[in-house]
Amino acid sequence: MKYREILDEIKPKKSEKEKIETLCKTLIDNINDIAKKENIPVEATLVGSVAKGTWLSGKADIDIFLPFPLTTPEDELREKGLYLGHECIKKVGGKAEEKYAAHPYVTGHIQGYEVDFVPCYKIKDANQLRSAVDRTLLHTKYIQENLDEEKKDEVLLLKKFMEGIETYGSEFKVGGFSGYLCELLILYYDSFENVLKAASNEWRPGYVIDIENYGTSRKFRDPLIVIDPVDKNRNVASALTMQKMTEFIVAARNFLENPKKDYFYPVKLKVSKEELKKEIKKRGSRIVAVIFKHPKLPADTLYPQLKKTEMSIKKHLNKEGFKVLRSGHWSNEEDLGFLIFEFEVWRLPKYKKHFGPKFWIKKHYYRFLRKYGKENVWVEKDRVVSRRERKNYKVESYIKELLKSGKIRVGKDIKNYVSKSKVMNETEFLDYVPKQSLEFLKKFLNPGIHLWR
Amino acid sequence: MKYREILDEIKPKKSEKEKIETLCKTLIDNINDIAKKENIPVEATLVGSVAKGTWLSGKADIDIFLPFPLTTPEDELREKGLYLGHECIKKVGGKAEEKYAAHPYVTGHIQGYEVDFVPCYKIKDANQLRSAVDRTLLHTKYIQENLDEEKKDEVLLLKKFMEGIETYGSEFKVGGFSGYLCELLILYYDSFENVLKAASNEWRPGYVIDIENYGTSRKFRDPLIVIDPVDKNRNVASALTMQKMTEFIVAARNFLENPKKDYFYPVKLKVSKEELKKEIKKRGSRIVAVIFKHPKLPADTLYPQLKKTEMSIKKHLNKEGFKVLRSGHWSNEEDLGFLIFEFEVWRLPKYKKHFGPKFWIKKHYYRFLRKYGKENVWVEKDRVVSRRERKNYKVESYIKELLKSGKIRVGKDIKNYVSKSKVMNETEFLDYVPKQSLEFLKKFLNPGIHLWR
Repeated sequence: MKYREILDEIKPKKSEKEKIETLCKTLIDNINDIAKKENIPVEATLVGSVAKGTWLSGKADIDIFLPFPLTTPEDELREKGLYLGHECIKKVGGKAEEKYAAHPYVTGHIQGYEVDFVPCYKIKDANQLRSAVDRTLLHTKYIQENLDEEKKDEVLLLKKFMEGIETYGSEFKVGGFSGYLCELLILYYDSFENVLKAASNEWRPGYVIDIENYGTSRKFRDPLIVIDPVDKNRNVASALTMQKMTEFIVAARNFLENPKKDYFYPVKLKVSKEELKKEIKKRGSRIVAVIFKHPKLPADTLYPQLKKTEMSIKKHLNKEGFKVLRSGHWSNEEDLGFLIFEFEVWRLPKYKKHFGPKFWIKKHYYRFLRKYGKENVWVEKDRVVSRRERKNYKVESYIKELLKSGKIRVGKDIKNYVSKSKVMNETEFLDYVPKQSLEFLKKFLNPGIHLWR
Repeated sequence: MKYREILDEIKPKKSEKEKIETLCKTLIDNINDIAKKENIPVEATLVGSVAKGTWLSGKADIDIFLPFPLTTPEDELREKGLYLGHECIKKVGGKAEEKYAAHPYVTGHIQGYEVDFVPCYKIKDANQLRSAVDRTLLHTKYIQENLDEEKKDEVLLLKKFMEGIETYGSEFKVGGFSGYLCELLILYYDSFENVLKAASNEWRPGYVIDIENYGTSRKFRDPLIVIDPVDKNRNVASALTMQKMTEFIVAARNFLENPKKDYFYPVKLKVSKEELKKEIKKRGSRIVAVIFKHPKLPADTLYPQLKKTEMSIKKHLNKEGFKVLRSGHWSNEEDLGFLIFEFEVWRLPKYKKHFGPKFWIKKHYYRFLRKYGKENVWVEKDRVVSRRERKNYKVESYIKELLKSGKIRVGKDIKNYVSKSKVMNETEFLDYVPKQSLEFLKKFLNPGIHLWR
């Protein structure tokens, strides 16, 4: 593999670097000027991938932290922090947008960049932590002190590979590897290829990486455990799902066996509705989708709720005797979402066998007999059994009733929308959905397609 | 309940008793005469329900045992025993038929009765047992010594009730209660009603009845344990299945709640092919039958083999993803048999999800990937998964192939016949089967129908 070629494409050029550095300096100077003028005891600090020099060309998210003394009351921190952000954005002619993480913060859209202004506490070590964002200062410092120039290139390769195979990002939607986790993996294994080799050969569920030898790994029950060098009580990989860990390992093995530049870029898919219809027909399975309008929500709110709803419906379907082969969810992140289910069993008899108690649990036995009538009860080994009419023996009508039943666990922000869903089979559904979801559907039908090139 | 009324119908009248007693005396005298003449050291003994006075009117099976001294070699016992039987049958103008249990024996069809002549060893107690038949002498003696006239009536009621609800008989086809077991239950509980009450209220799997307090119950792992008063190492109820034990208890509870004379007689069913077709259609399930010719076999050979074949096919069906709701088997006990399956799931997609190894079991992982190709493999949590074409996605074609595959466990005497079966759906099947199987089919569709009136 000629990694040089890839680095040429993903490593920020001198001009990009200078432009960003200049912008950052201007913003920080501005903040500090305002702070001084208003007598706010803050010195703005650049953090994140820009500060660490590990951002992918064209993808610089500028994070400017506003560390307040530990003695500042939370109200004051929030108020003055947001004020500083807004003032700075105003001064450089950007557009402000308030957001919420552990604290509220301001994002400025400035000269084509997204710049986050985040109030935080000025902590020296993890013992002084007030909230998760405070840790970022320590992370930035740790990487700046430990990651040399050569390894920064390796970080870029790892991040870009992760992007290509869809395992990059610790947000809920992905459940993959964060940027900081990529940096630590390079610190620990020295190079991109070494990370892939170690993952391929050594990783298994519960694998531990403890760079500073804190010995605190037994606290964690996660697929991968990477003890934070700046906080022995935190697993940097806590957001990584078993699914994404395995996907990374499988893609790594595929890559090592036959390295190709294509792995560093998203898999190319051409999809049309006609082609998807043909593909589904050939499988001889049944696909049913639950489609609904929903309000605009932050991605980290929206996706967990979609997932929760999907899982709850799936659980009910399987319990009823319909068998779900695979399921998934999608949203345009604006106003339209759907859940999708592929079935191994989508039609059932008009009655179901209902198992009652063991014959010797007399109270339940007699209650069962009274409820169903002795003429509808029989015996299988030591249990009584009865026949029960099944109201919905086709999966679509079952789902329709389920959605109205109040039995499923639905995320609270989408609850009232999901109950008004349309339930469609594969043909109706493919005619209905927007084109932007076709790539998702192709991947839903071919769930390993992004793991090889 | 007026049990008197029932007893009037089921208790042998004086004339029936005298006729049987006279016949038995004639047969025994004949045997003893021949034995004396031929110098065979045997004194014929009447055993079984006739000897114990517990036979149901019109159902006297006469059992005449021929006890040889313990020193007799087995060959000689067999040869001389059969000889005595044949000679006796010849003398009274009956028709002989040789049969096999633990030893060979002769059945004579004499004056409308079936009379078994069974050679055995003359044992004094269970320690001297050579084979299971020898025990019968001890059973007969024990019941004769312990069961008084009043209790004989109770035995008749219990046997007749068991017949009515289809739990009477310890042969494999039934798996129910033997006559001797009924007698012991009456000895233990005193009356028919007490047996029903005890079963209803106290019995549960592993319930122990140990009349002679031998304390040997822990040897047994059966649904019901009744230690044989004449042999502490035997469970008289060992042939009783959990199924029949529970059926008896359920029917007993139904009877006690609303006693009716009808419980003592088989449930009356009117069945027609048209009615069965309608009933099946209403269920919305699918029924498939495997029909085959088979040779005439003893019932205790035939039924276990049918059952074994049924269970093996069912296991494969469920493993493949077809879901069997209920299954059964039937034979005319001459030359035609069938296995029958009702399905909750009878159709599957054209592909199946095939779970491979966990990702860290590397040898299996790479074998799996080579076998299916990385383009057909994906990841679910920590496992690799692939898609596999399903050759038979309809249940009939799956069964047809399964029957030819050699994968199912089939009873050896019916193996070559089962492999040439016809596989039919409910409509074809109902047009094809003989009328005598319709009652079985009605019960197959309504498996509790014999447990209440």
